[in-house]
Amino acid sequence: MMNRERIAEEYQRIQDEICAALEVLDGKSKFQEEIWERDGGGGGRTRIIQNGNIIEKGGVNFSAVHGQLPEPIKKAFGVEEDQFFATGVSIVIHPSNPHIPIIHMNIRYFELNENIRWFGGGIDLTPHYVIEDDARFFHKQMKTVCDKHASTFYDDFKVWADNYFFIKHRNETRGIGGVFYDKLTPEKTGLTYEEIFNFSCDLGRTFAPTYIELVNRNRNKSFSQEEKDWQLLRRGRYVEFNLVYDSGTKFGLETNGRIESILMSLPAQANWVYDFKAKEGSAEQHTLDLLKKGVNWIG
Amino acid sequence: MMNRERIAEEYQRIQDEICAALEVLDGKSKFQEEIWERDGGGGGRTRIIQNGNIIEKGGVNFSAVHGQLPEPIKKAFGVEEDQFFATGVSIVIHPSNPHIPIIHMNIRYFELNENIRWFGGGIDLTPHYVIEDDARFFHKQMKTVCDKHASTFYDDFKVWADNYFFIKHRNETRGIGGVFYDKLTPEKTGLTYEEIFNFSCDLGRTFAPTYIELVNRNRNKSFSQEEKDWQLLRRGRYVEFNLVYDSGTKFGLETNGRIESILMSLPAQANWVYDFKAKEGSAEQHTLDLLKKGVNWIG
Repeated sequence: MMNRERIAEEYQRIQDEICAALEVLDGKSKFQEEIWERDGGGGGRTRIIQNGNIIEKGGVNFSAVHGQLPEPIKKAFGVEEDQFFATGVSIVIHPSNPHIPIIHMNIRYFELNENIRWFGGGIDLTPHYVIEDDARFFHKQMKTVCDKHASTFYDDFKVWADNYFFIKHRNETRGIGGVFYDKLTPEKTGLTYEEIFNFSCDLGRTFAPTYIELVNRNRNKSFSQEEKDWQLLRRGRYVEFNLVYDSGTKFGLETNGRIESILMSLPAQANWVYDFKAKEGSAEQHTLDLLKKGVNWIG
Repeated sequence: MMNRERIAEEYQRIQDEICAALEVLDGKSKFQEEIWERDGGGGGRTRIIQNGNIIEKGGVNFSAVHGQLPEPIKKAFGVEEDQFFATGVSIVIHPSNPHIPIIHMNIRYFELNENIRWFGGGIDLTPHYVIEDDARFFHKQMKTVCDKHASTFYDDFKVWADNYFFIKHRNETRGIGGVFYDKLTPEKTGLTYEEIFNFSCDLGRTFAPTYIELVNRNRNKSFSQEEKDWQLLRRGRYVEFNLVYDSGTKFGLETNGRIESILMSLPAQANWVYDFKAKEGSAEQHTLDLLKKGVNWIG
């Protein structure tokens, strides 16, 4: 039976697996764990890794919270229910080397009652420098896991990611996208809840091998101060997205979530330069040219 | 006659005066100016100063824009009008020395039609390290200018600033507050539009002498790496406030304002450390203890 408890348990297992894999990958830093309880109900396991060989700052968080649904969220969801349950795993990894991409993953389950419940989530990649071959590899990984569950998932969720991970005020995508989905139910997918749950677990388990490959392809590249500065500017954009648009952050702030867990997505350092313009023909400009919706990375 | 043109002209004059005063204060860097036009109507003069003796990054912006009022803002204002006019001066100064405070000022006029128009604005101070004597000086300056125009202004606008410049998710004020007001009309104040306009100009003209005094009190203090790091963390909070709560930023993003002008408020560099705790009895903890509403700085 697929119920809250089983979902939360399996998501915790996925958190464990990912943390173990990332510690091996990093080879230096270990996750520090914080077990916390939420005043309104539930709690979580926040795991942060900092100052590693690869990872400058990253978090792999699990939470399972419940309680009163705040008024603005009831309105946004268009529901009358007062109580909610939500569980999920959230990841953001900021590497120190600008040639290694930032990555984000989230898998979550949300429940108001027996009849109103859904799955959401996604994985998206934010390279400081877009490398086409890596982008194709990443999207193929996403397509492979999607195709196992429904033939429409990759195409639909890829478009969804393009639209969701979009920094409207900059008119640019956050990175090269990936997959994003929300409010998946049997009605919308033709799958059972159990099958959607399995999809979310499979997606979660695609994270580690995908990121490990991307890190290993780029970890030995040296970088200049100029490339580091560019990374810090791109991180500024990441901060802008997360604080202005990210629904998970908004939900967390509005439900009095644990602030340090929610804002683990922010980098150790981010910079802003007034009216920065990339040089024509530069690698930076090449990346900017690819930060748009609708790029077909599968071919 | 107080009309759009005269207000915009006087606000430009205030921008000129402040830029001239800040250049003298800084002694090294000059403002770079960008004249821009807005697609929907109007434009502005963005002036940015960077890498100075005192100022690491700052902006003193004037704009006068008009056009179609976006749906979400119509809703938020509870009005039916389609057209708006808005003019104002906005300032944020990020100094390099952590012993010098960040400062923000805004004076603005907003008009929907002959009957629906108002003034808004404020000045607030964000010391990285709160120095009580400086905080008292700053608040007395605010009180002096308020008292010239209405006996209730300082008390009312001080409370308004405490509530407005509040980082809800951190449960702390952005700094030591100051004054904030919005939608001031003759009905609400007992003053004429002309008189409210004069108040806003006086407030604008209080900015330079106030900040110059605060800079001169602290500019020769040396600082350690630890103090610099603390400044970068506090700037992270400033970024959080501006991107999550600031109405001006929201308005700018929603009305397709010029992004580089709106986000000039962001610092050159900001840092985030997971779950940072200030040492008990430290200067950092002392500052945190004072970042709360309702502190009486006038006595």
